[in-house]
Amino acid sequence: MNIKVVLKILGTVLFWEAVLMFPSLMISIIDDSYDINAFVISIVLIGVIGIFLKSLNINDAHLRKREGYASVAICWLVMSLLGALPFYFSGAIPSYVDAVFETASGFTTTGSSIVTDIESFPRGLLFWRSFTHWIGGMGVLVFTLALVPSLGARSVFLARAESPGPSFGKLVPKLSETAKILYIIYGAMTLILIVLLMIAGMPVFDSLIHAFGTAGTGGFSSKALSIGYYNNPWIDWIIAIFMFLFGANFALYYLIIKGDWKSALRNEEFRFYGLTVIASTLLICINILPMYNYSVSEALRHSAFQVSTLVTTTGYATADFNLWPMFSKSVLMMLMFFGACAGSTGGGVKFIRILVLIKSVVYEIRHTIHPNSVQTVKIDGKSIDNDNLKSIMIFFFSYVGIIIAAVIIVSLDNFDFMTTFSAVLATISNIGPGFEVVGPMGNFSEFSDVSKITMTACMIIGRLEVLPVITLLSPSIWKKH
Amino acid sequence: MNIKVVLKILGTVLFWEAVLMFPSLMISIIDDSYDINAFVISIVLIGVIGIFLKSLNINDAHLRKREGYASVAICWLVMSLLGALPFYFSGAIPSYVDAVFETASGFTTTGSSIVTDIESFPRGLLFWRSFTHWIGGMGVLVFTLALVPSLGARSVFLARAESPGPSFGKLVPKLSETAKILYIIYGAMTLILIVLLMIAGMPVFDSLIHAFGTAGTGGFSSKALSIGYYNNPWIDWIIAIFMFLFGANFALYYLIIKGDWKSALRNEEFRFYGLTVIASTLLICINILPMYNYSVSEALRHSAFQVSTLVTTTGYATADFNLWPMFSKSVLMMLMFFGACAGSTGGGVKFIRILVLIKSVVYEIRHTIHPNSVQTVKIDGKSIDNDNLKSIMIFFFSYVGIIIAAVIIVSLDNFDFMTTFSAVLATISNIGPGFEVVGPMGNFSEFSDVSKITMTACMIIGRLEVLPVITLLSPSIWKKH
Repeated sequence: MNIKVVLKILGTVLFWEAVLMFPSLMISIIDDSYDINAFVISIVLIGVIGIFLKSLNINDAHLRKREGYASVAICWLVMSLLGALPFYFSGAIPSYVDAVFETASGFTTTGSSIVTDIESFPRGLLFWRSFTHWIGGMGVLVFTLALVPSLGARSVFLARAESPGPSFGKLVPKLSETAKILYIIYGAMTLILIVLLMIAGMPVFDSLIHAFGTAGTGGFSSKALSIGYYNNPWIDWIIAIFMFLFGANFALYYLIIKGDWKSALRNEEFRFYGLTVIASTLLICINILPMYNYSVSEALRHSAFQVSTLVTTTGYATADFNLWPMFSKSVLMMLMFFGACAGSTGGGVKFIRILVLIKSVVYEIRHTIHPNSVQTVKIDGKSIDNDNLKSIMIFFFSYVGIIIAAVIIVSLDNFDFMTTFSAVLATISNIGPGFEVVGPMGNFSEFSDVSKITMTACMIIGRLEVLPVITLLSPSIWKKH
Repeated sequence: MNIKVVLKILGTVLFWEAVLMFPSLMISIIDDSYDINAFVISIVLIGVIGIFLKSLNINDAHLRKREGYASVAICWLVMSLLGALPFYFSGAIPSYVDAVFETASGFTTTGSSIVTDIESFPRGLLFWRSFTHWIGGMGVLVFTLALVPSLGARSVFLARAESPGPSFGKLVPKLSETAKILYIIYGAMTLILIVLLMIAGMPVFDSLIHAFGTAGTGGFSSKALSIGYYNNPWIDWIIAIFMFLFGANFALYYLIIKGDWKSALRNEEFRFYGLTVIASTLLICINILPMYNYSVSEALRHSAFQVSTLVTTTGYATADFNLWPMFSKSVLMMLMFFGACAGSTGGGVKFIRILVLIKSVVYEIRHTIHPNSVQTVKIDGKSIDNDNLKSIMIFFFSYVGIIIAAVIIVSLDNFDFMTTFSAVLATISNIGPGFEVVGPMGNFSEFSDVSKITMTACMIIGRLEVLPVITLLSPSIWKKH
């Protein structure tokens, strides 16, 4: 691996991380709160490291797949380690492990929190905490690509490693243009959401915070009760619908902008995603109806919100689904595992992969009955070739394998199985809350440092979809070749 | 599908099922207990149906893969439906759904039980209940093949569909000879076990019962406390070691008989299996040491027994591992998922598949770093081709998929998550007990009929490794072609 090109990319990313801390610093200065110095020191430190690495004189001819993967994994790791500094320096989060957990949870749009009293945080830190969701949602390297096209044509490996889903499709031939279009759609949708939330009656600052969390499908809230705090059906429905929208493939919005509604609505992954959300919402609504005194409107609102928040791996809550019947919890847990769509800001296995795997099973059955048939597995009319299929299956297996390994490590803390299992699933799928101790009204503060580090790793592994991170564990990638 | 050839095979299997009920009838007659009539009626009924179907005049030229798969799935289903009759007719199990659950649990060597007071059962029924383990362990169709070579050369499809593991290797060129060798090894090992148990002090009848349960890796016991009843370290260690042996590939014993120790010990799956068992035993031993007053010998005995019983999917118990710390439970749950070796009598995913999948991930990482390398995934020096790999992955995905679907259905009963999840895992992996309500000292009687039927299906799906059963769900297999 050519480590120099990796460091140069890291430099660019860190430079922008420092720049993106400025809005938070501004808010601290306006509020004159205790976190001003922490932001100033962090910005200077990160900025200096970034500018130093950026100035390394290297041509990018050596950006191959391995450097692309390594860059993305290393950038996300270092970004989290340094992005934690404002929390740590200000003393708001006294443990550095906790601060890194919270920051990785932000960037990876997980939304799991170790903070027990979030409402006491100064607004600058709250802003930074939620802004990491917005930055991480669409991708830091995608962001860099949009601004710094000089990284060259081969930087498609960066986008591929960072983007959720089995494949990265360019919208237009030029990658930097694609990145720009994605960010414009992302920004515009976020802006619309902010305005709608304000109209619905949410204060301005809260609207920003929750729009960042919704857009990145993150889930950090400035309120302990999450969205439930506002107890406002309008806000619930707006956020539920926008979570659903941010969980869909952004390429579809580009199709719609170009006027091609038909292709967008005919997209197989989107249909599967939509149908699953509708079916789950209705099933859970029926299941929880008695708990809401048979008020269909209320049961439907809570059911739709919780389905949308977990399937998109956002993690907001309007109700403590911990108290719901086991059937609803099982359906929600299945959605947590499925995750959102490829090319969205969401986590999890992704609907497209589940669809391909289901179709492969059907294909295998058909092949058993008609051994001579030559049909193939198709999505949107296009055949999925064997290499694609294999990498989806390998992803699926390593995902399940990492879940098992992480559950064993976290179980050393001796929490009940539901807590242990759902905590791991919630972090690797970038959701946020799980069940029991880590339920929507609980948090992750009680775990040991070993578990917190394991789950921090799970968040980054889940966000980058396994391979880029585990590739770093191979000794041979560190050799110079 | 040529349904006639399927019916003919079914006839042969049912005929032998009736024959295999005779020993149980003998015991009832000796004891003069209330189940004599139930056995007589069942034997006559099953025997008559069997002889009628057997006498259909059909040549076996049409035994293709589809008929092989369908035959095995249908035989296992009907065998369970009819094998339940003695329990039902005698009134020992008043609900027919329960009786079928218990019988399928026997044949599939699961060992999950809905009986709350097993020690009140007459010995004839106890014998039948445990004998189903022994019959189902090595396979009913393999048994038939050993006795009725006339089924023809193409009956390899039957063996393939019934044998645990991704591929069925013939030991000798002739399939009926292979089946005979397997049954001779199986019978000899069972006999040695019976003798050893008697020497260790177990009564004769109990030795038979527990030898059947161990050999088939089933787990039914005639005692409510399972093996813990005897509280005899010798018995514990004998059964622990034999469970481990019955969980290994029987082809290895054939190699050893032929004097080829080296190849047997060099077998990669066996090494992986052995190392996992040793590592898990030691880890759990350390973890539970405080619970056994720091007595290493006792902690090691209980740890080794429970690891062996769950990894081989037997399901006996000498300790209530429900009370163990979460770490031990997580390790045990992982072993439950892994299952035993291919070509053994055990259930689960099988070590060979886990090994192939791990190697595929390592291969994928290597391929990312060195895109031009041409290495392949190898086991025991032989390359695993893409088709094999694909079918292992499809198996793995459908296995996980069925677990998720079954958990959602069973969760309608509103038990806690650990109970629900482990009950499904214990049935599809053919283990027997799970955790909490279905723990080693609990049973499955409290579930609804819907859940019991779902779990009965899981047992058969797990035993036949998914594809043969789900192929039956395809409408196109029922067409005449």
